[in-house]
Amino acid sequence: MTRTLAWTGLALAASLCASHAQEISAPEKAKAVEAEAALHVPGANYRGDWVQLGAFSVLADKPADGAKQLHVVYTERKNIDAYLATGAFPEGAVLVKDVYAAKTEALTTGVASYAGELAGRFVLVKDKSSRSPRFGDGWGWAFYEGTETKLTATTNYKKDCLGCHEPARATDLVYVQGYPILRK
Amino acid sequence: MTRTLAWTGLALAASLCASHAQEISAPEKAKAVEAEAALHVPGANYRGDWVQLGAFSVLADKPADGAKQLHVVYTERKNIDAYLATGAFPEGAVLVKDVYAAKTEALTTGVASYAGELAGRFVLVKDKSSRSPRFGDGWGWAFYEGTETKLTATTNYKKDCLGCHEPARATDLVYVQGYPILRK
Repeated sequence: MTRTLAWTGLALAASLCASHAQEISAPEKAKAVEAEAALHVPGANYRGDWVQLGAFSVLADKPADGAKQLHVVYTERKNIDAYLATGAFPEGAVLVKDVYAAKTEALTTGVASYAGELAGRFVLVKDKSSRSPRFGDGWGWAFYEGTETKLTATTNYKKDCLGCHEPARATDLVYVQGYPILRK
Repeated sequence: MTRTLAWTGLALAASLCASHAQEISAPEKAKAVEAEAALHVPGANYRGDWVQLGAFSVLADKPADGAKQLHVVYTERKNIDAYLATGAFPEGAVLVKDVYAAKTEALTTGVASYAGELAGRFVLVKDKSSRSPRFGDGWGWAFYEGTETKLTATTNYKKDCLGCHEPARATDLVYVQGYPILRK
């Protein structure tokens, strides 16, 4: 019952900031540009040294297959402390979301899904600047395919990212309901 | 579409170490005993100071409802370093599994499930001793309901835990396939 991410063939631009990571064909990959350094996937060992904010599972198109993706979000401990003190992420806070293609097995717990291959990563940086169209609404935004860390196809956060994040505007465009460590 | 853990009424003893955390009725709660100190839920802020090994989502009984539980497992960084060096968790390593009732929403990513209320926690301690029937096969084993940290209804790991963990014997009874941080 192992399942891997069902890559879709939808237009890239419509969903780079959706969690439906998509196949990037060679010509589209060529369009990827180096993001601002502040938006790179951090060089730090964030999975070992930062804190897991929360995890999401996204149901497969055929629900009986279990999850199609597992998302795991990290930030530095100091950002969590600041959020608990102030109710907001501090300027400079970096959130990294690992998007994994899920693997699903019938385990003794039931149909259980867990992280398979890394499909891509989203980086959000709390940043008031508007130094490029990747910055706005208080954040810098970029998506990186697979294990890429610098070259992003995100060109404009309004076009590429807000479609998915707009519903979370009341919580500063972040789906904090999935982050139990921020609950008091 | 919010869903919470579907507590079941099955016999307690059969599945304390299953991830199907179950309702413990008052008379059964009265039977809970204090576990050995080494098996307590750690006093440390493991969600902030330890490392997330991995997360599992468990599909709802009606798959279209998404996940019914999210499990998130933590251990200290030093144990991950040791595992990567030796292929095994070192003596004394503690693994804590948070079992959350899942909440599920139709988000822009699709049907997404995340951690709701804490249903209980499993503690596994790498320990060669056999100081009580909660210890054996190289580990100490205990389940704690809800936010309980010391009183466990786990009386005998063979009866309460192995049923669910036996399929993972080839990997020292732990489902390491869900722990991407242990992959090389």
